Amino acid sequence: MKYTRRRFISTLGAGSALIMASSIPGFSNNIFQDKNKKLGVALVGLGSYASYQLAPALLETSSCYLSGIVTGTPSKIDTWKNKYKIPDENIYNYDNFDKIINNKSIDVVYVVLPNSMHSEFTIRAAKAGKHVFCEKPMALSSRECAEMISACKNAGVRLFVGYRCHTDPFHKTAMNFKNTSVGALKVVQSEFGFRSGDPKQWRLRKAHGGGALMDVGIYSIQGSRYSIGKEPISVSAHEYKTDNVKFAEVDETMIWQMEFPGGIASSCICSFNAPFNRLHITAENGWFEINNAYSYGGLRATSNRGPVDIKPVNQQAVQMDTFCKSIVDGSESDADGSEGLRDMRIIEAIFKSAKSGTMVIL
Amino acid sequence: MKYTRRRFISTLGAGSALIMASSIPGFSNNIFQDKNKKLGVALVGLGSYASYQLAPALLETSSCYLSGIVTGTPSKIDTWKNKYKIPDENIYNYDNFDKIINNKSIDVVYVVLPNSMHSEFTIRAAKAGKHVFCEKPMALSSRECAEMISACKNAGVRLFVGYRCHTDPFHKTAMNFKNTSVGALKVVQSEFGFRSGDPKQWRLRKAHGGGALMDVGIYSIQGSRYSIGKEPISVSAHEYKTDNVKFAEVDETMIWQMEFPGGIASSCICSFNAPFNRLHITAENGWFEINNAYSYGGLRATSNRGPVDIKPVNQQAVQMDTFCKSIVDGSESDADGSEGLRDMRIIEAIFKSAKSGTMVIL
Repeated sequence: MKYTRRRFISTLGAGSALIMASSIPGFSNNIFQDKNKKLGVALVGLGSYASYQLAPALLETSSCYLSGIVTGTPSKIDTWKNKYKIPDENIYNYDNFDKIINNKSIDVVYVVLPNSMHSEFTIRAAKAGKHVFCEKPMALSSRECAEMISACKNAGVRLFVGYRCHTDPFHKTAMNFKNTSVGALKVVQSEFGFRSGDPKQWRLRKAHGGGALMDVGIYSIQGSRYSIGKEPISVSAHEYKTDNVKFAEVDETMIWQMEFPGGIASSCICSFNAPFNRLHITAENGWFEINNAYSYGGLRATSNRGPVDIKPVNQQAVQMDTFCKSIVDGSESDADGSEGLRDMRIIEAIFKSAKSGTMVIL
Repeated sequence: MKYTRRRFISTLGAGSALIMASSIPGFSNNIFQDKNKKLGVALVGLGSYASYQLAPALLETSSCYLSGIVTGTPSKIDTWKNKYKIPDENIYNYDNFDKIINNKSIDVVYVVLPNSMHSEFTIRAAKAGKHVFCEKPMALSSRECAEMISACKNAGVRLFVGYRCHTDPFHKTAMNFKNTSVGALKVVQSEFGFRSGDPKQWRLRKAHGGGALMDVGIYSIQGSRYSIGKEPISVSAHEYKTDNVKFAEVDETMIWQMEFPGGIASSCICSFNAPFNRLHITAENGWFEINNAYSYGGLRATSNRGPVDIKPVNQQAVQMDTFCKSIVDGSESDADGSEGLRDMRIIEAIFKSAKSGTMVIL
């Protein structure tokens, strides 16, 4: 759906859109605001990604800035407060988070919590009238994704999923490869994996939505889908485990293939116990590869013609600026909740196929 | 089975082995011959591989030489005769081939025919008392492979399959990677494919044993098996077709994974319609890759530590010399008929899995 301002307004019902919008409790009314004003972003969850990628990126963004934090660890507050000049009234914990509804300097809530908390905090943020950036994977299930989409729609706020590759120039080149006179696409290969460290981390707990597929496999689902530009029609998957203790609750290595319309295929690997980091697209008359495909930096592109010169960007800054632009001008996003839901349905099919040993039709 | 001279002799029954051996009509008695004498090899089928790889290689081999040819195309004879100084009495066609039994200057028959003819000519060569080198894939089915093994055993001749990578130094490095302090192996990826040209070639005909899996997929079965050093316990496969006309009879692209003991996996692609050529081995703490893995030359090896310096060899020459050594000293070969049979059983399982959409247990 093209998310135009007109459509957005129409979802609010008849009458004066401005009056309607401002009459929704806590509605921060960003969509009508001064396009030159930076949107205030509150990070929910101050783990590694928030600390070392998102917060620094918010110093480089042109359309938003770090205006608040939400944390369950009081000891982290002072450091963040001082480093990013965050006023006390913009600092929340998980209990008083809903009071954010009254905070006009926070326009967007960026959910960077363990996967099992994405749904709850997205819905609470929506109810507080805040737009939501939610990290991938969007949630634990397609049911949760649907609830999140519905909550945001009902609250009249936008929902984006943290697909940083969508706006990365290396991956945009991958998306465009099929249009570069290389003949028909045949196969996309994508692998992402690393050796997970701390055995106590939430990514190894099933209840928190851990496991390789949810965390890193999703990049290959994405890479396949945007390189091919179509939706898969079936998946065949198999799970491999070499360490039954560390990976007792979650998938260690998952290998799967996806069938796309017209006989195009993708072959994917994700792992929490072995290093992989590649997106390789094969067409009739050429290929394109990103090696270190899914890292935050250090991406390198090569094609059958040799190295491809692409200027890297701050992925997180570009992603957030792009989301903000979409909020401000009411334009559609290819990283919205429906995109997160599509991936989650594929993830569910992969788990189902791996469990049954049978191809699953999507 | 260790194929010692003693065992070989014992298969001939009681009494004087020398007398027994020489009493078998046409038995060329190579195993007892002067180890310094070069074995005579007759090529059966003078297609591209025989013309441009095997015959030139037989000028470089130290333990064998091109002593005869068998062809169904009389027009080819003069060129070969002149180029390789082959006497008229060592030139056969498919009809009079069995008379090779009386030719003492031919010790080995190298079957380089379309796949559908491997079985027939291997068995006829065995009955003529000749050792056999048979190109891969060994035959059309595991039943044929078993018949070929049996025929050679009954005739007291050796049978080898043209697995040139077994003796290639790049692939020997791949086989040894698991022993190089890189931690446990996790995943092997292997891809081999190219765009097939002439739509009339036998490789596109089902009756001739065509198709990508039989022709190039077998390299990835091999690459996975010798890199991991174990036998797969299940396969999951899917066939992809983008051109239903050209590939009406045979598989165009096959993607499959194999599960190995201990949770090790391999993920493979073969294609007759897209370029692939890679063997990549991932262990806990490192990786090793051959790119241009399966070409006759131009192989390049890299590991997580950088480029790996390996001196290339003439694959076909080394392969044939190694087979001849095994014949002369009666030693076991890792490229014998049983190895060809193992691959054929996996190929059958891959086809079965692709057809059923279900994992097949081996």
